[in-house]
Amino acid sequence: MEFTTVKDALKIILKSTEDFGIEEVDFINSVGRVLKEDIVADRDFPPFNRVSMDGIAIAAEAFNKGVRSFKIEGVQAAGSPQLTLKNPNNCIEAMTGAMLPNNTDVVIQYELLEIKDGFATVNLDTVKNFQNIHKKGLDRKENDVLIPKNTLISPAEIGVFATVGKSTVKVGKEPKVMIVSTGNELVEVSETPAEYQIRRSNVYTLVSLLEKLKIKADTAHILDDKKTLETKISKFLDEYDVLLFSGAVSKGKFDFIPEVLNNLVVEKLFHKVKQRPGKPFWFGKKAAKTVFAFPGNPVSTFVSCLKYFYPWYYKSVGLNFETKQEAILSENFYFKPNLTYFLQVKLHQENGKLIATPIAGKGSGDLANLVDSDAFLELPDDNSNFTEGQVFPLITYR
Amino acid sequence: MEFTTVKDALKIILKSTEDFGIEEVDFINSVGRVLKEDIVADRDFPPFNRVSMDGIAIAAEAFNKGVRSFKIEGVQAAGSPQLTLKNPNNCIEAMTGAMLPNNTDVVIQYELLEIKDGFATVNLDTVKNFQNIHKKGLDRKENDVLIPKNTLISPAEIGVFATVGKSTVKVGKEPKVMIVSTGNELVEVSETPAEYQIRRSNVYTLVSLLEKLKIKADTAHILDDKKTLETKISKFLDEYDVLLFSGAVSKGKFDFIPEVLNNLVVEKLFHKVKQRPGKPFWFGKKAAKTVFAFPGNPVSTFVSCLKYFYPWYYKSVGLNFETKQEAILSENFYFKPNLTYFLQVKLHQENGKLIATPIAGKGSGDLANLVDSDAFLELPDDNSNFTEGQVFPLITYR
Repeated sequence: MEFTTVKDALKIILKSTEDFGIEEVDFINSVGRVLKEDIVADRDFPPFNRVSMDGIAIAAEAFNKGVRSFKIEGVQAAGSPQLTLKNPNNCIEAMTGAMLPNNTDVVIQYELLEIKDGFATVNLDTVKNFQNIHKKGLDRKENDVLIPKNTLISPAEIGVFATVGKSTVKVGKEPKVMIVSTGNELVEVSETPAEYQIRRSNVYTLVSLLEKLKIKADTAHILDDKKTLETKISKFLDEYDVLLFSGAVSKGKFDFIPEVLNNLVVEKLFHKVKQRPGKPFWFGKKAAKTVFAFPGNPVSTFVSCLKYFYPWYYKSVGLNFETKQEAILSENFYFKPNLTYFLQVKLHQENGKLIATPIAGKGSGDLANLVDSDAFLELPDDNSNFTEGQVFPLITYR
Repeated sequence: MEFTTVKDALKIILKSTEDFGIEEVDFINSVGRVLKEDIVADRDFPPFNRVSMDGIAIAAEAFNKGVRSFKIEGVQAAGSPQLTLKNPNNCIEAMTGAMLPNNTDVVIQYELLEIKDGFATVNLDTVKNFQNIHKKGLDRKENDVLIPKNTLISPAEIGVFATVGKSTVKVGKEPKVMIVSTGNELVEVSETPAEYQIRRSNVYTLVSLLEKLKIKADTAHILDDKKTLETKISKFLDEYDVLLFSGAVSKGKFDFIPEVLNNLVVEKLFHKVKQRPGKPFWFGKKAAKTVFAFPGNPVSTFVSCLKYFYPWYYKSVGLNFETKQEAILSENFYFKPNLTYFLQVKLHQENGKLIATPIAGKGSGDLANLVDSDAFLELPDDNSNFTEGQVFPLITYR
């Protein structure tokens, strides 16, 4: 059987994205979601000539005529309506964040003043027009786009939403995802396995990998029985946008997933990828429904989710997907098979360079090894000798 | 007044950490928390000699004696009790994940077999002992520490918790945090501000920055009135471990926070730091209570939280705190004042190198500029001319 290359597999997956629509959420709960509207300035920023140092506001003209001692007419506080300087030779004390008083165009900070008996005296030769004043509209003009559509929302965006009064924002809807484990050898986390059993772990790893994308997935376990699989998967295909499987996609006598999916008329887009780990990966579609059937080994499931599901999701919700992360191999590494190898690595920085050190694992079943590493370095299938200092694509997971 | 250097400020803050104790949470909700127990292997991994390819299990001895056609005695499925090969010249079909049947020590994968009339025939010259068998205890031995205490939990750790049956795990308790904004100029996000008012945004930015640390903070707003401030802050000091303020720490007539904190016997550990933005930053303690009073400008609050609160929190919960993130300046940059400058930058990667391009903002009030950048490059205070290619510490926020 011909295997699909990693590159082709990703290409097919990125051609199979879906639009899940738009929903409106409270702005404070939108971190990690993808913005689906342009956020525009509701007014100029700053909205008024804003005092940016605590001190006195004066008229430059008075200063230039030689006035150095200014009678204090009042105090312009932040959050108060704008005052007006009545006598051009006087001053108004003005606070950071306040509107610049009418008839003034210079602020002199307290550090340069002496205040005594209701007068503020300065000892300066010159002042600059609009010094210590953050001018209206300097940062942004009313109706400027502050945040474009399709931005991944972070705390920086939260502040802007608040500033322009967007108490709710439009974001990309998350797909409804069902994560299914199969295999009679699996017992629950809270159970004590018999000698020949192990605990279910892949579904939980997948749940937390999807949580990083703010997707709340459901989970199920199905025993290795063809009829049960067919009934349950058929129901899941009706109820969910995406099914993620872990296991039962290889050559074993009980690896029923490809056959069952075929019976349910899910179109196979590929089965088996030229990669390690994760070779038996199966991917298909049934109309708008998408099925990722990952191999059951823990490391295979883990890296396949990052390498294939993540970009599929990002593209589906409209995020400009950047694969540009790369790292520098710290030592020579040899990998014979003609497969793309996802090498587990530990990362560190040196002089602004990202260095990846291979962490020898014990194969795709060695879940504990994921704990000791930070990322996978993607070594291409057209070579076996990888050299210290070479740069390769990187998939981080911390 | 002498300003504290950024280095000293951080040193003082890191000496002022607190232990908030330990709590037990469901393992699936522990991502982003700090583990407070060693996670040990409850048995060997794999727990048995585990078949790692679908095929037949045979005795090497029979093969070495010349047997090439093996009668199939049965099927060893994953999740079934261990079978025993009765006749040493026969075989048992064995599935990935299954126990290796008794009296067998070699697995030959289906790809190399022909199966017909109840016999599996191979065309091989040699086999290796324990080929395609993941040997008991190869990855980890019973009682090995799989994840040490004080690890930041990611999806990789979730899988290990599940595998060893830790349905709940001990994690560091989060501090109780109150985020307080002050300033009469502030109105709520849902309100339309008068000309001289602006909307509250810093508290929401701080809430989402703390959510990244899994801290659910409370928020409050207090008007610029000394008596009200004193009453409310006194209450917050009783009820919370940490108070974060935004604003009212500079020289303005209504910048009451330092005075009020002094009246409430919160010990000032420093006030004003040699940095831009964020110069008027105030920090203090009252017994086990910790007070970060950040300046009110949006960018000041933002960078101060990342530069000071984050490491304080990490050290408080026992995480080995690494400041090693750095980036390479993409172009010459000049900054005259004798202050540490937190330069807003956009990041990109080139050949494994992290490049930081300055994004010219309009000063510490320019919140929208945070949206256009990814990080702050920390330019030291002992220089004004920063050169393309130089490497500086980096504070990322995406």
